[in-house]
Amino acid sequence: MLSNRYIRLGTERSAIRELFEYGVRRKAELGADRVFDFSLGNPSVPCPEIVNEEIKRLASTDPIASHGYTSAPGDPVVRDAIARFITRTQGFPARAEELYLTCGCAAALVATLSAVVSPGEEVIVLAPYFPEYRVFVEGVGATLREVKCKGEDFSPDPEAIKATLNEKTAAIIINSPNNPTGAVYSEEDIRAIAELLNTFCRENGRTVYIISDEPYRELVYDDARVPFIPSYYSDTIVCYSFSKSLSLPGERIGYVFVPHCAREADSVYAAVAGAGRSLGYVCAPSLMQKIIPACLGLTADISVYNQNRLALYDGLTKMGFVACKPKGAFYLFLRAPSGDAVELCERAKKYELLLVPSESFGYPGYARISYCVRPEQIEAAMPAFRKLAEEYGLIKEIEDEQA
Amino acid sequence: MLSNRYIRLGTERSAIRELFEYGVRRKAELGADRVFDFSLGNPSVPCPEIVNEEIKRLASTDPIASHGYTSAPGDPVVRDAIARFITRTQGFPARAEELYLTCGCAAALVATLSAVVSPGEEVIVLAPYFPEYRVFVEGVGATLREVKCKGEDFSPDPEAIKATLNEKTAAIIINSPNNPTGAVYSEEDIRAIAELLNTFCRENGRTVYIISDEPYRELVYDDARVPFIPSYYSDTIVCYSFSKSLSLPGERIGYVFVPHCAREADSVYAAVAGAGRSLGYVCAPSLMQKIIPACLGLTADISVYNQNRLALYDGLTKMGFVACKPKGAFYLFLRAPSGDAVELCERAKKYELLLVPSESFGYPGYARISYCVRPEQIEAAMPAFRKLAEEYGLIKEIEDEQA
Repeated sequence: MLSNRYIRLGTERSAIRELFEYGVRRKAELGADRVFDFSLGNPSVPCPEIVNEEIKRLASTDPIASHGYTSAPGDPVVRDAIARFITRTQGFPARAEELYLTCGCAAALVATLSAVVSPGEEVIVLAPYFPEYRVFVEGVGATLREVKCKGEDFSPDPEAIKATLNEKTAAIIINSPNNPTGAVYSEEDIRAIAELLNTFCRENGRTVYIISDEPYRELVYDDARVPFIPSYYSDTIVCYSFSKSLSLPGERIGYVFVPHCAREADSVYAAVAGAGRSLGYVCAPSLMQKIIPACLGLTADISVYNQNRLALYDGLTKMGFVACKPKGAFYLFLRAPSGDAVELCERAKKYELLLVPSESFGYPGYARISYCVRPEQIEAAMPAFRKLAEEYGLIKEIEDEQA
Repeated sequence: MLSNRYIRLGTERSAIRELFEYGVRRKAELGADRVFDFSLGNPSVPCPEIVNEEIKRLASTDPIASHGYTSAPGDPVVRDAIARFITRTQGFPARAEELYLTCGCAAALVATLSAVVSPGEEVIVLAPYFPEYRVFVEGVGATLREVKCKGEDFSPDPEAIKATLNEKTAAIIINSPNNPTGAVYSEEDIRAIAELLNTFCRENGRTVYIISDEPYRELVYDDARVPFIPSYYSDTIVCYSFSKSLSLPGERIGYVFVPHCAREADSVYAAVAGAGRSLGYVCAPSLMQKIIPACLGLTADISVYNQNRLALYDGLTKMGFVACKPKGAFYLFLRAPSGDAVELCERAKKYELLLVPSESFGYPGYARISYCVRPEQIEAAMPAFRKLAEEYGLIKEIEDEQA
């Protein structure tokens, strides 16, 4: 019998995809330069040169070794290199046996959720959140519980998290730097969450894992620092991807890190591996595994994203739009002037601006702007944003205030 | 709560892995040339040169296009090339929209089983069978039903299949060329299965899908022909991998083909895509997708496997061992002289021969010999096989017969 859930998931278009497809049609009609597509989180900066050099080097050496099966958790040399890198950069002791390489972060999240969450349990996410979390959480038979972040800066709200914890809570997903807000949770935020979880778990004899989804770890600006959550809360499982840092989103290479200090760490690690096996993840793509040791700590040129961030934030706020200045990732979360995100995005479309309404992120009233685009696109889009601001009467207000 | 099933799957070592690890230790002790490892199905022949040329070409051109996300079902150009190739080589009309690219055959099988099998239903497999079928089938909450192949040549037994069909049967997995027997099912076999399934489905108002697992499609010898099952049974879903044909097992690139003629084909396709999404398969690795159009129809140099096949089959049968001559794949299924496969494999170990006992393939009394090894290994192993034959008294019997 066909699975209705999977038919629905395969048929429904996400709001993001829908808009992207609209953009493709519109670009064909008007020309690519006249459509300002801010819909997708697809890196626009090429990977560091060494990535392609490593690929070419491996493709020129022993093809059986380069393209052969690795062990299911990944090549031991690669895992050892990543473990040393974590130890060195985070001051947190990591070992190869604690790492399980995956086909990107989505696979890491699904394997981790499968491992530590049972059907009927609950997983907390902090809204706004990446919409596929709902798909992954419901996929393991669990219930997604949304907890809203604080409105001013989209930082976590410990009191609200505390109020949502119950005897069914199995895990909480933390995503910092955040998609879609660009928020980077402070050390204070992480300490507060760790403290309330520790208290709850102690009082209730439960384990609630933090699943730290970190594809944007390296994408931070100014002097923002991303706390390494296992250092603050021992029952943390890290899901990482090289997609964004190395601009390799299609190559599907990432990892799960189960720190030895986590409760039942050996069983969690075994369960992650067992889930990977049952879900058909034989090993992470071998060539991409093997380029990693030479690329650790490198990123694509993120100064381009920073330039976009500043141009967009300064430009839009000067027009009267309201947004939090993003500290990381490559998204800006714009408040809908009338409070209606769908209206904002529909109006934006008239000026060929493609923005994603925030409903699917579990936080109405905003639009997500992905600024992983060429800087010329930001510049060219500014007159369109200005018209949008005029339509909302924002520009006039500013001029009135200045008068 | 941790998943006990996944802990178990991640902790238990498969018989094959166990033996492989033993081999690694033994090679470290004795030297690699003195251990005859026939345990793994890891191709020993390098990929065709064009694979690496394409990789290098793509790594030298537009990195954002080469390494970026593709659409979830795969790059349309790649899918179109595969569809044309299927149409041309199988005489079966295929279209890009019927193809969903996957991270290898395991992912293709899991997505397909998730799509067409509901919890509580049954999936038939023909024993002996690839042991991970059990993991995948049980992973979707279904029950695996084993149907033994005929003993003489490991061809399917239509009467036995018929007797196993019932109101819970959702699918039957066909794997030809077969792992572990090397059997290639004849056109007559496939026609017989198609006929009995059609009769059963008509009489019971059900749909039973054939899931054709075809990673060894191109690995056939002499004049063996592999019938393309959708041509015989319209409710067939093909799961294919480039792992074995192109010697790229670690790269995880394959596809699901849902022919338009299959019952509810659009819903099946949507459900495969929805399952892929829910399981965290964002897209198949992008660089590997993009090398495929240039590599369709090519294979690694399988004349090496054929040479191994003949040397092994001739050598072992002359010593008095009994085996079916494999027609495809790169496995030989050797009958245990005493009927006890574990005993055979333990005795073989004394002579540093690493063979996999057939229990985990659901068919006791045999050992699987993977002959995807260097031809020198076959030659060097022959004296060890001879000692094993002597231990079983086989050589003596032959000499007695000849006397």
